[in-house]
Amino acid sequence: MSVAIKDDEIDIVIGAVRSDLTSFMNEWRPMFSRFHLIIVKDPDLKEELKIPEGFNLDVYEKPYMDRVVGSSTSVLFSGYACRYFGYLVSRKKYIISVDDDCLPARDPKGFVVDAVSHHITNLTTPATPFFFNTLYDPFAEGSDFVRGYPFSLRSGVKCALSCGLWLNLGDHDAPTQALKAKQRNSRYVDAVMTVPAGSLVPISGINIAFDREVLGPALVPALKLAGEGKFRWETMEDIWSGLCVKVVCDHLGLGVKTGLPYVWRTDRGDPIASLKKEWEGVKLMEEVVPFFQSVRLPREATTVEDCVVEVANAAKEQLGSTDPVFARAAKAMLDWVNLWKSVGYISSSSSAV
Amino acid sequence: MSVAIKDDEIDIVIGAVRSDLTSFMNEWRPMFSRFHLIIVKDPDLKEELKIPEGFNLDVYEKPYMDRVVGSSTSVLFSGYACRYFGYLVSRKKYIISVDDDCLPARDPKGFVVDAVSHHITNLTTPATPFFFNTLYDPFAEGSDFVRGYPFSLRSGVKCALSCGLWLNLGDHDAPTQALKAKQRNSRYVDAVMTVPAGSLVPISGINIAFDREVLGPALVPALKLAGEGKFRWETMEDIWSGLCVKVVCDHLGLGVKTGLPYVWRTDRGDPIASLKKEWEGVKLMEEVVPFFQSVRLPREATTVEDCVVEVANAAKEQLGSTDPVFARAAKAMLDWVNLWKSVGYISSSSSAV
Repeated sequence: MSVAIKDDEIDIVIGAVRSDLTSFMNEWRPMFSRFHLIIVKDPDLKEELKIPEGFNLDVYEKPYMDRVVGSSTSVLFSGYACRYFGYLVSRKKYIISVDDDCLPARDPKGFVVDAVSHHITNLTTPATPFFFNTLYDPFAEGSDFVRGYPFSLRSGVKCALSCGLWLNLGDHDAPTQALKAKQRNSRYVDAVMTVPAGSLVPISGINIAFDREVLGPALVPALKLAGEGKFRWETMEDIWSGLCVKVVCDHLGLGVKTGLPYVWRTDRGDPIASLKKEWEGVKLMEEVVPFFQSVRLPREATTVEDCVVEVANAAKEQLGSTDPVFARAAKAMLDWVNLWKSVGYISSSSSAV
Repeated sequence: MSVAIKDDEIDIVIGAVRSDLTSFMNEWRPMFSRFHLIIVKDPDLKEELKIPEGFNLDVYEKPYMDRVVGSSTSVLFSGYACRYFGYLVSRKKYIISVDDDCLPARDPKGFVVDAVSHHITNLTTPATPFFFNTLYDPFAEGSDFVRGYPFSLRSGVKCALSCGLWLNLGDHDAPTQALKAKQRNSRYVDAVMTVPAGSLVPISGINIAFDREVLGPALVPALKLAGEGKFRWETMEDIWSGLCVKVVCDHLGLGVKTGLPYVWRTDRGDPIASLKKEWEGVKLMEEVVPFFQSVRLPREATTVEDCVVEVANAAKEQLGSTDPVFARAAKAMLDWVNLWKSVGYISSSSSAV
């Protein structure tokens, strides 16, 4: 069932929001060293990056990014959103991206999890969004479809996005993180699932992989909170992007998987301090979710670009007046699609700083 | 979050398709002995039941069942469907039902799984069908909602049905079982999930629990294959019933959970012999699924009875001409609702044979 893919069809994209990547890169070396890496430095970061030797990589920094993107765009690459620049300039079929505070996890038997190979398995085996399989991923070793699963749906559809999970520090929002500051995730759930069509899911950008050739500009840096900080629980850029991706995938008949592989998220930051910033996410989500639940894409929207433009226009129309953050997000989505058309698809080799 | 419930609010219903329940009952004794049991003997079974001492139970057999149900009904209680008679005559709030070829499972640490207490936890904590939580059951110990989960949906909805899973022998249909006769399920997935609203799922009756007070007659013995045998992979009664339940739950805003607890399914039967019977399930599912995917219940259907009647009428209208099995199923559903009205709700104490 699985499609064999070559190492040079993959870019591993790292958004560097911290300057010292030494231990991060060294821990991931066994999994990353076979692949080409794109490291994008957060434009707000002043210090020079520290990157250990022995990797095949390109580093992108602010001056080059400004030159490529130009000054007329509303697309922002600061903070965690810097990785999207890597998605844009990559020329590979698949992207794998992991936050720089994540290390390889261990499974319950103590073996180190190869997140790269697991993401690739997720992307190269079919997804099954149109009927729920209680036996989890039917394409996993030793699994299958449960009795009653319709035979005509068993070939599944293309999987476009694979979302991995997190041991140690789960991915909570600021209020939850503050309320449960001591809570750590130790439950290793040995499963991959397709998120059913029509069901929305808050996709986290912490540990993901996607088919860049298929999804193109659907992963979009658009929603930036006014008080967005440098901790994941202070951000919502990936949540908006994820809801957009899910709506696009549902419309185009593509699959989204969640579950394995796990990464180990290390602790950092002070959630109580974050909460004092009056995190806007609580309020915004109550607007965002009904919007994405109700948005319907027209049949004529047959490409990812069409779909993103449709979502952007609908967001501007339906949410634009409720909060300026949404009008900005809509504008950024349209600019992103244009940027992707002019930069994202060029087949020339990428250039490094 | 969880509601405390009393032991006497639960009936454990066992459909006996085999006569010797000795080892089954003895293995389950630590989990079952605190509760009242209802054992319903498959009307086709000739031998006398062998049941060990020391349980608080009522046994129902064909003569009594005929008397209660009468001769005018199309509802059938033969084979695995015999358990539905137990659902009908129970007077308890919750039902737990396990097939008689299942034994208690062990978790990866070697501890025996208490399926009863796990089902009760599933039923007494909220379900979250309206948004997908990548961190699995947010009400499980040590878990929570993921960043981006809308705050207004975090209180969840009532969970009406809990579907457990199977180690050793998975729940496959006849063709899969024949094709993969040696395959055994050894993957213990430590998770409970709410099946999203709008997503259909083939519910297996092997290891389930439900809120009888809430779901009432929605679990219905209706679809009987012409060549239905005495092995699960030859049946589809629970698949039809499960699709009906899911549609009803989605309409009424109730939740369905799947995942833990596991039971250990022992091997029995010859799948190759089963396949020779020209199993109709393959063909029927291709009719059944589009029907349940498209059926819409009117807003006026506000009770479970209303909903089951609506599904029955729609099935008769849309599927009745494709195969006589569907017209019979529709008739059985209507009879079942009437039976439930006359017998199912009576609050007098149940009488045993």
